[in-house]
Amino acid sequence: MISFECDYAEGAHEAVLKRLMETNMEQLPGYGCDSYCESARKKIRKACGCPDADVFFLMGGTQTNAVVIRTMLAQYEGVLAAATGHIGVHEAGAIEYTGHKVLELPQHLGKIDAAELEDYLKSFFADENHEHMVFPGMVYISFPTEYGTLYTKKELTEISGVCRKYEIPLYIDGARLGYGLTSKANDVSLPELASLCDAFYIGGTKVGALCGEAVIFPKGNSPKHFMTMVKQHGAMLAKARLIGVQFDALFTDNLYFKISRHANEMAEKMKKGFAEAGCRFLLDSPTNQQFLILENSRMEELKKKAAFSFWEVVDEKHTAVRFASSWATTEENVDKLLEIVKKM
Amino acid sequence: MISFECDYAEGAHEAVLKRLMETNMEQLPGYGCDSYCESARKKIRKACGCPDADVFFLMGGTQTNAVVIRTMLAQYEGVLAAATGHIGVHEAGAIEYTGHKVLELPQHLGKIDAAELEDYLKSFFADENHEHMVFPGMVYISFPTEYGTLYTKKELTEISGVCRKYEIPLYIDGARLGYGLTSKANDVSLPELASLCDAFYIGGTKVGALCGEAVIFPKGNSPKHFMTMVKQHGAMLAKARLIGVQFDALFTDNLYFKISRHANEMAEKMKKGFAEAGCRFLLDSPTNQQFLILENSRMEELKKKAAFSFWEVVDEKHTAVRFASSWATTEENVDKLLEIVKKM
Amino acid sequence: MISFECDYAEGAHEAVLKRLMETNMEQLPGYGCDSYCESARKKIRKACGCPDADVFFLMGGTQTNAVVIRTMLAQYEGVLAAATGHIGVHEAGAIEYTGHKVLELPQHLGKIDAAELEDYLKSFFADENHEHMVFPGMVYISFPTEYGTLYTKKELTEISGVCRKYEIPLYIDGARLGYGLTSKANDVSLPELASLCDAFYIGGTKVGALCGEAVIFPKGNSPKHFMTMVKQHGAMLAKARLIGVQFDALFTDNLYFKISRHANEMAEKMKKGFAEAGCRFLLDSPTNQQFLILENSRMEELKKKAAFSFWEVVDEKHTAVRFASSWATTEENVDKLLEIVKKM
Amino acid sequence: MISFECDYAEGAHEAVLKRLMETNMEQLPGYGCDSYCESARKKIRKACGCPDADVFFLMGGTQTNAVVIRTMLAQYEGVLAAATGHIGVHEAGAIEYTGHKVLELPQHLGKIDAAELEDYLKSFFADENHEHMVFPGMVYISFPTEYGTLYTKKELTEISGVCRKYEIPLYIDGARLGYGLTSKANDVSLPELASLCDAFYIGGTKVGALCGEAVIFPKGNSPKHFMTMVKQHGAMLAKARLIGVQFDALFTDNLYFKISRHANEMAEKMKKGFAEAGCRFLLDSPTNQQFLILENSRMEELKKKAAFSFWEVVDEKHTAVRFASSWATTEENVDKLLEIVKKM
Repeated sequence: MISFECDYAEGAHEAVLKRLMETNMEQLPGYGCDSYCESARKKIRKACGCPDADVFFLMGGTQTNAVVIRTMLAQYEGVLAAATGHIGVHEAGAIEYTGHKVLELPQHLGKIDAAELEDYLKSFFADENHEHMVFPGMVYISFPTEYGTLYTKKELTEISGVCRKYEIPLYIDGARLGYGLTSKANDVSLPELASLCDAFYIGGTKVGALCGEAVIFPKGNSPKHFMTMVKQHGAMLAKARLIGVQFDALFTDNLYFKISRHANEMAEKMKKGFAEAGCRFLLDSPTNQQFLILENSRMEELKKKAAFSFWEVVDEKHTAVRFASSWATTEENVDKLLEIVKKM
Repeated sequence: MISFECDYAEGAHEAVLKRLMETNMEQLPGYGCDSYCESARKKIRKACGCPDADVFFLMGGTQTNAVVIRTMLAQYEGVLAAATGHIGVHEAGAIEYTGHKVLELPQHLGKIDAAELEDYLKSFFADENHEHMVFPGMVYISFPTEYGTLYTKKELTEISGVCRKYEIPLYIDGARLGYGLTSKANDVSLPELASLCDAFYIGGTKVGALCGEAVIFPKGNSPKHFMTMVKQHGAMLAKARLIGVQFDALFTDNLYFKISRHANEMAEKMKKGFAEAGCRFLLDSPTNQQFLILENSRMEELKKKAAFSFWEVVDEKHTAVRFASSWATTEENVDKLLEIVKKM
Repeated sequence: MISFECDYAEGAHEAVLKRLMETNMEQLPGYGCDSYCESARKKIRKACGCPDADVFFLMGGTQTNAVVIRTMLAQYEGVLAAATGHIGVHEAGAIEYTGHKVLELPQHLGKIDAAELEDYLKSFFADENHEHMVFPGMVYISFPTEYGTLYTKKELTEISGVCRKYEIPLYIDGARLGYGLTSKANDVSLPELASLCDAFYIGGTKVGALCGEAVIFPKGNSPKHFMTMVKQHGAMLAKARLIGVQFDALFTDNLYFKISRHANEMAEKMKKGFAEAGCRFLLDSPTNQQFLILENSRMEELKKKAAFSFWEVVDEKHTAVRFASSWATTEENVDKLLEIVKKM
Repeated sequence: MISFECDYAEGAHEAVLKRLMETNMEQLPGYGCDSYCESARKKIRKACGCPDADVFFLMGGTQTNAVVIRTMLAQYEGVLAAATGHIGVHEAGAIEYTGHKVLELPQHLGKIDAAELEDYLKSFFADENHEHMVFPGMVYISFPTEYGTLYTKKELTEISGVCRKYEIPLYIDGARLGYGLTSKANDVSLPELASLCDAFYIGGTKVGALCGEAVIFPKGNSPKHFMTMVKQHGAMLAKARLIGVQFDALFTDNLYFKISRHANEMAEKMKKGFAEAGCRFLLDSPTNQQFLILENSRMEELKKKAAFSFWEVVDEKHTAVRFASSWATTEENVDKLLEIVKKM
């Protein structure tokens, strides 16, 4: 059965796998000190326009969020995030497990609003009892968001401005960063994004790699002894080459962006086809995740022919579902899916 | 200046202090193994109608909440609380510091609703992704709430029923339990409250003691090696007699309830006076905390003559403030306060 | 039965209790902002010769150790302590509970050695793998030690020198500080001790108070937002006056030192009497705790007439036990004890 | 330069890599629910003789130790380990970071002794103050140990017996399990090892895989909601197939054991050659890690021609170093190494 269940259903892009094979029997030092990790770091710094950036390789998104947030917060601080933020909802309490509260901000199609953020911060410090409360110590946003939506350059700049005014770091979860940056709707470049935040990660797991995320501290501002804390979290890899080689391949000849763009093109095709078939959208997503509201009976029928994922209950008779494209999605499969949808 | 700022402005009730003096030079074992702790436990068990209850003495409310919640939750669980719950707002993240998330429920004048609780639990277990989310592992409510309001016996029974259906313990924060139980509006007895929950504490700090809270596990259901974990939290007292003696005094001749009733009578007098003076109430509180909405200019004027506490900003021109009575409030001071208010 | 079981068997010194009674009905602000806390802080700063010191009041020793150590360590650091240090042995893992390792140093009658400390630090940083290990981030010593022994001024100065060379703070657990400072064998003054370390606490619970310890950061070097973190640990007191008033009394007219000296005099009398009775000492303690090695049969007999505490098993036939004097020990009771011992 | 620095210098065994390539473009569910993970589980259960075992796949050793130990311990418990145990020395405090103490036992060539373990447990429960101490809640051993040594079947059986007597689980760190089981000196089978413990892991990272460890709870005794806690630790993989496919390959046609045996043969050849060249051994290791004591001048000379790793300082003039073979070590390189050593 064709599957649009998620963007991590396949292994790795063939160029990535090829590099793993070619370098497989080289004897390399561990823990990220090898030449491939170093080469990948250089290419990433260049792509980000951050010659002084600190770059680290971790395994997955939840791990990256937990390590970065824990090591950047002071003990008395929590992290601000949209009510729908991944760290607050779908990470099994991994942030709280490190001892820190996730402070909720209102969400608008998955995004926070700069003015509401400023209100929060202003009210907090104005509250006479704030020494008894969790200090807001960081802002977390995802790009694209959990709903596939994007912050505009203007929105990002405003959020960044509030963060700097209140001296609070801005951290961007880029699990699907490639799909965000190469969306037709996007007006933010990677160097711009890097310059507006204090830490972010470039997702590999969902964008062409077997596994791995690249954490970037754009101004060389990584927490002191970061790798020792990475080890403490159980996140240090003996064979870090595994991720270094992959990111080295992904950042060669623009591969990361080419394959991301392909995913978006497939998503646009789906979106157009869904619209033509009269489907109802949960919201307007410009990236690789498309959300439909289906009648439950129609959903059950569709399930027999194509895989997609449950998103949320809308009402007694309707369910929101997600169709995700990825670097690996073939046009042929999109056509098959639309064929099925049209016939329903 | 007369003060209605809080219910912990004075030391201890004189009968409590007297017992501390009388027993001061006795040589007693430490860590809660002395005869006064034992006597207090017996009296508390009797008052609660729980002959098998485990009773422990801790120092303060935040500490008690953190210890009880942490030791009763499994690692993968969080605690459900009203959005206005003390543990979620004014404890500086003490629960998250122990590694657990506070899961928010809607609040209605500080209270949660049994039906909304059940919806939350039902939805959680129905969500196909719930293994990636924080499991709801306990329900926290306060009695009275942070807004001075009370659950009726019916409401408590319904919440308790939902908890039992889902096999989740119900924990009641009784920082001001005396003021709740002796309110004219209350229809729940201490034995009833004890039988409806799995753990609760009887607040001493705000009700006549120098310090100390009594934690009760009504069915003898305290977590295994509870005292070792209390020590781990830095909450074990060498001279636990300090709290044992005080609770022994408070639970002799109904003292705890008598002095609580007095506080409520003083609060009712304030309430009536405020109403007669045409004050605007933030809400209708039947216990020792009364909340008014004052014009800012009037508030500033009043501040010069009586102490009260800031509650929250209502709008640009109005502020909500709190007047608290306690076991120590004199009728004379209430009269003075009302005199001032009437003249404004 | 007369008891020498511990130095926290009685309540508070009468002058302390008197101040609590006198101030009982004053309305005071909470959380350490009252005039008695402020007065106590001033007196303590003066006694320590540290006009800029930050002074905080906490409830007990384990709590104080956990809060100070956690808030002064970086995430990648642990705390060095003698193998017999209280934090490593008798605090139920309260330090590890905060996420930090207790790194063991060899102990010599409860003390660490400056040269061994330096060796440890030197070896650590010389180890090529030290980024995979817990960084030594603080040195913990107790004064007097868990064995009643004392560091000389020379020893303290050497340890302090090593700490400064390696830029690691020195923290002194002063649960029994009074008994250390007023020992005839002591050559360190309170201002000297304060100047040689980065944080320490003056124990109240074991030296005349109902409860409470005063934490001092001699150079005003308390961690940022310390009180918020105190609250996070569940260690903030609503009625902090309880401790402020007691320390205010203890640091009036040298009371703290007078009553400590009395305890030492009683201990010396015991020691002399034990020696005359031919008892075998576990070690030579110059402070209020005296350790004897008793034949088990003799120990059982003695237990019937006087209370003391088990220390450790020496061999199959002998046990080490502890006799503690305190501010409350009467000469009459010491005489009775020695009478009993001599007859055995 | 030829390298014997560690057993994680190369990528993956070619058969493992081949399976990754073959399965790369299959669309599979995430989080360990795919058919390869399931197939690997079946093969592992069979190899272990544990039809009811729970099997999970994690990324690395420190992560696995932290997750297993944290989820199996009660809050008041710590884990017993040899003073040289990996968790106590080279994991940057990852266990303490989860809130639990590592309790040290004496080490004998990296091993603990059953009688000393029993003494520890007996003394602990006999200590009148043990409620104030960390409860021993688990025994951790490594097989082979950090020194390459092995427990005999008799030793393992005795340790297991003590654990069962005291109802404490036994956990075996098998980072190099293959090298232990296929050593000529070994007399324990995988099913025997599985039956003697309560949890263990089969190391992949050091034995033929790109990454990954297989955690086994032999009696189906995994902690409740284990995967949710794995996620909390940031250890859940979206593309868990990455590890499933690899273990499926490693447990096909005995590959895991064949390649482990090869490493041991190469180590034996080294050992014999070293002995013939008159080298001094730090200890007698029967597995893939060989430890020599070299004069510092000779060590520096050797460093120019072959890579090995620093182990520890022996004295001013001598250093202990480690030569590790692995599944990837060629006989040709061993010959070259021995040629160099003999000429020195």
